[in-house]
Amino acid sequence: MSSSNLIQPVKGTRDFYPQDQAFQNWLYLKFKEVAELFGFQEYEGPIIESLDLYAAKSGEELVKKQAFTLADRSGNALTLRPEMTPTLARMVAQKARELTFPVKWFTFGRRFRYEKPQKGRAREFFQWDVDILGPENLEADAEVIAVAATLYQKLGLTPTEVKIKINDRKLLQDRFLTLEIPEENLVRVFRLADKKDKVTREDFIEMGQENGLSEDQTKAILQILEEKNAYLDSPWLVKIFDLLKKYGVSEYVEYDPGIVRGLEYYTRTVFEGWDVKGEFRAIWGGGRYDNLVADVGGKQKIPGVGFAMGDMVIAGVLKANNKYPTLLINKTQVLVTVFSPELYDKSLKIANVLREENINAETFLDPTAKIDKQLKYADKKGIPYVIIIGPVEAEQTLVVLKNLRTREQITILQADLVKKIKQTS
Amino acid sequence: MSSSNLIQPVKGTRDFYPQDQAFQNWLYLKFKEVAELFGFQEYEGPIIESLDLYAAKSGEELVKKQAFTLADRSGNALTLRPEMTPTLARMVAQKARELTFPVKWFTFGRRFRYEKPQKGRAREFFQWDVDILGPENLEADAEVIAVAATLYQKLGLTPTEVKIKINDRKLLQDRFLTLEIPEENLVRVFRLADKKDKVTREDFIEMGQENGLSEDQTKAILQILEEKNAYLDSPWLVKIFDLLKKYGVSEYVEYDPGIVRGLEYYTRTVFEGWDVKGEFRAIWGGGRYDNLVADVGGKQKIPGVGFAMGDMVIAGVLKANNKYPTLLINKTQVLVTVFSPELYDKSLKIANVLREENINAETFLDPTAKIDKQLKYADKKGIPYVIIIGPVEAEQTLVVLKNLRTREQITILQADLVKKIKQTS
Repeated sequence: MSSSNLIQPVKGTRDFYPQDQAFQNWLYLKFKEVAELFGFQEYEGPIIESLDLYAAKSGEELVKKQAFTLADRSGNALTLRPEMTPTLARMVAQKARELTFPVKWFTFGRRFRYEKPQKGRAREFFQWDVDILGPENLEADAEVIAVAATLYQKLGLTPTEVKIKINDRKLLQDRFLTLEIPEENLVRVFRLADKKDKVTREDFIEMGQENGLSEDQTKAILQILEEKNAYLDSPWLVKIFDLLKKYGVSEYVEYDPGIVRGLEYYTRTVFEGWDVKGEFRAIWGGGRYDNLVADVGGKQKIPGVGFAMGDMVIAGVLKANNKYPTLLINKTQVLVTVFSPELYDKSLKIANVLREENINAETFLDPTAKIDKQLKYADKKGIPYVIIIGPVEAEQTLVVLKNLRTREQITILQADLVKKIKQTS
Repeated sequence: MSSSNLIQPVKGTRDFYPQDQAFQNWLYLKFKEVAELFGFQEYEGPIIESLDLYAAKSGEELVKKQAFTLADRSGNALTLRPEMTPTLARMVAQKARELTFPVKWFTFGRRFRYEKPQKGRAREFFQWDVDILGPENLEADAEVIAVAATLYQKLGLTPTEVKIKINDRKLLQDRFLTLEIPEENLVRVFRLADKKDKVTREDFIEMGQENGLSEDQTKAILQILEEKNAYLDSPWLVKIFDLLKKYGVSEYVEYDPGIVRGLEYYTRTVFEGWDVKGEFRAIWGGGRYDNLVADVGGKQKIPGVGFAMGDMVIAGVLKANNKYPTLLINKTQVLVTVFSPELYDKSLKIANVLREENINAETFLDPTAKIDKQLKYADKKGIPYVIIIGPVEAEQTLVVLKNLRTREQITILQADLVKKIKQTS
């Protein structure tokens, strides 16, 4: 229907009809299962945060171009959270004394970015965030990567379909510094490097010049971003790859010198999930952020490492690989039909008895509807059983129980109904 | 900690640390269980909607005073949804042709209202919404009320602790019209009537004058709002109370001539949940809205009836009645400790084996930490079992399994570990 008068949803937002919501729930339960398998606890935060929280370290693009901003009535700049890590850092800083470290937390919630809506990208989306705060050592980095790989496994995505690409920003930085790039220029160079696969070589060199780099420097950067074995110079990465073998997920992981990440707060390890065919943008991304808790005002430095995975790209990847689930949205086991208005009470009572036994049961809500219409409703909703109580049954405390799949029906005592349904479902 | 530099959360927003989130999850699962028991299906919608959606019929107070507004980059007025029903009406209108009616849907999500934050009231909160769209007949009204009463039962709240107060706006309207109040003034009179218990009698009479009523008219309205047996003149209400007996929840429900509801879109039945002691404001509220789908631009009139229950008031009511749940937030069954950095690999592998068997297992992430520190971590997190693998055990493919509650420990073959843990937990 496309009525001209119908108030439209806001561009880039999403409606979740029961079928869509069933997928969101399924995905959330997978995320939760995997996170809890590794001992992560669930948390959540506000959807509204002050713009300051991101201004520090999330990077110019996210804050200036993509933030949904609003003002409170005192004129303070607020934003709908574009990502979760700054909220997490704030929450951990706030209760640093009471929390047990390492903090291992996960969440699944909405994020907002004012981007151009397109296939697989909306302005309102969900992300699964998984983070470890406390450890400065690389064992934590290996663990969060293993969590993501385990999710792949639980979703049935194989190493021939999806990969995890890992890099070390420190390694990149050491390389960049050999090009006589001044240290204060590194933030801009990282931001530039992150754009490599999004623009042509010519444009990249031009962008280098705009960022104060000579053509030679920019070409050297491009070369660095393609050195396939550079990780051998990083004992940090070598050890992470070694640990990932012990986690049994090494088939999923590979070194990629071109992985940089756009967010400014990453200090060391960075990683991204990719589909092997390259049909999608990054499925998820993350890294180590050793200074963020202090940057949002925490008294102590509390290092962290984690990643975020959006709901829309992973849904696309599941579809493309025929791993998208078939979900039955009907949870009702029995429809108790209504024979006539006079017998509505009887139907209500039978439905009550079923619900008291934790059997999901509906009564048809229009007592004047013909039985045919009611059966059709059950069929459309996918309800497997219907109960019919006519005057004869009502008098003899009987019910007719009909299996809509087999079309078989039996007449049994009302007293035997619960047992019968529990047996057959 | 209260650092002066720490970026603060926005006033009226809420952080959900794992303990808080555990309650949200528990509550959500109760809501879901009850809704599904009656055959309702879960849906969700956007958090951002256009202000127009509410301007129609949500009432002046909600739109002008309490809406969190923002503008998109074209200057369109958007709002963070203060309630769910208009979104639901829009979604149903949009797919009216494809949906199976009656539509029975529920959702649990965030709402935003720019109110003064106080105990039990935040600017960002959650609501459970339960609605039936399609039926114009009162059987649907009785059903949604029965759903709310069943929730009371599932939460362990008794009829001596909580009630459901029901009224019929049509009945009120008929009464008001006998006072020679012009029909076009009824919206204002309903809005006034809703304020009755929030102001003094004197203020109420003054407010009546401000709304074009004589003192006699206002006094007569006050009298109407207290006629304890007026429902006997409403066959509609009499029948609803009769049906609620059949649902087995009549001890929870009562007629209250003073229930009006603030939202303008209600056309007939209105109801609210209250704690018997009157310590809280309304726990939840709802009613019948026969024109809302058409008002948001739907081609057909699709009647609806439903309610919304907030998370914060129900939490308060549970606490006040000693029904607030004790929730264990730890889901980890086993901590695999690390004896020494050389043996970290062994610990990782044991943890892997456990996870493959769906046993939630953590490895301690700092391989240099003393065993004592690791046991303390397990204690603090409430993890019931720890595993220790020293050099001797590693060589003989053994593990030490320690029960932190009983402090007992046994040494067993690694091959027997999964079986043992599954037996004991």
